[in-house]
Amino acid sequence: MKILSVRTTERNQFIDITNQIQRCVEEEGLQDGIVCIFVPHTTAGITINEDADPDVTYDVQNTLSRLVPHHGSYRHAEGNSDSHTKSSIIGPSLSVIVENGRLQLGTWQGIYFAEFDGPRSRQCWVKTIPSR
Amino acid sequence: MKILSVRTTERNQFIDITNQIQRCVEEEGLQDGIVCIFVPHTTAGITINEDADPDVTYDVQNTLSRLVPHHGSYRHAEGNSDSHTKSSIIGPSLSVIVENGRLQLGTWQGIYFAEFDGPRSRQCWVKTIPSR
Amino acid sequence: MKILSVRTTERNQFIDITNQIQRCVEEEGLQDGIVCIFVPHTTAGITINEDADPDVTYDVQNTLSRLVPHHGSYRHAEGNSDSHTKSSIIGPSLSVIVENGRLQLGTWQGIYFAEFDGPRSRQCWVKTIPSR
Repeated sequence: MKILSVRTTERNQFIDITNQIQRCVEEEGLQDGIVCIFVPHTTAGITINEDADPDVTYDVQNTLSRLVPHHGSYRHAEGNSDSHTKSSIIGPSLSVIVENGRLQLGTWQGIYFAEFDGPRSRQCWVKTIPSR
Repeated sequence: MKILSVRTTERNQFIDITNQIQRCVEEEGLQDGIVCIFVPHTTAGITINEDADPDVTYDVQNTLSRLVPHHGSYRHAEGNSDSHTKSSIIGPSLSVIVENGRLQLGTWQGIYFAEFDGPRSRQCWVKTIPSR
Repeated sequence: MKILSVRTTERNQFIDITNQIQRCVEEEGLQDGIVCIFVPHTTAGITINEDADPDVTYDVQNTLSRLVPHHGSYRHAEGNSDSHTKSSIIGPSLSVIVENGRLQLGTWQGIYFAEFDGPRSRQCWVKTIPSR
């Protein structure tokens, strides 16, 4: 697998990693299949959303933070139960289709590393699976 | 990959696409492996839930809309930040196991295209991956 | 595919199945690829979160139950619309990378069967897909 490094600078932040994932697909030489993207952290996730207007990912993050506030009646003593909860809601893995060596994404789609407990140095693991 | 067309008629709507996915598996001749289902939109998603009582998907949609209301303090000017948020919560991709040419689903499970900003003409992309 | 049995004892409960999944990978002889984990139920899901402090999964469950309460204005007559909704939020399938015959997980990650309508006897289906 390939290991991507992601540097986050905010507590909650969506970072567009589409180009890095495309580069992995090329380095692995995958022409046709799927790419499995996996986040090895329990306070982050991986998602796909609009990459045209940055207000979209702002609104998504902000809505998640309204639903799952930083401070609340949590038991876990590290003060990041909100981050763990968002991680399970958004999820740690995604699969994207690859054809002719290119990620197949909709017109407005970008792949985002979803940070919920930054700033931190993070990783994203990428595995290519051929369809034949 | 195969491209399915889905026509939605409501702003929020779950459409059962299980039979269409099964047909893709047959057309691609997959006997044994997984099928990766991918929604190329940022205001829709893909999910699995009960297909026996339509009240179930009604309640799921309705609960999501209570948590993430259409109108609120959003920045994105197009009035569909709720749809984008639900898309990230439900997710754009799912993998289902295939054995002997058949989708492996639980007794009550159906695969649903989850529309969050309809009515629209939508697509669903399907890729089969053999297990050997 | 392999079928795991999971016995839950609470209505809402996260059960760590990491070791059972690792055993499936070994029994199937997968060295390099992905393992697709699928829950064939509509009132349960599969997630990954911290396995060190049990307060983390307690907080995740508790927060989900605050957002989606057991009793509310639901149409579905069986009294478990909350369980169905949580199932769609958490999701029924996950893919995890395998290298050298080992599940690739972050330091703090465990794989959890997420029960939302227990106690019940449940299953988890596991399919291995090689990367070449």
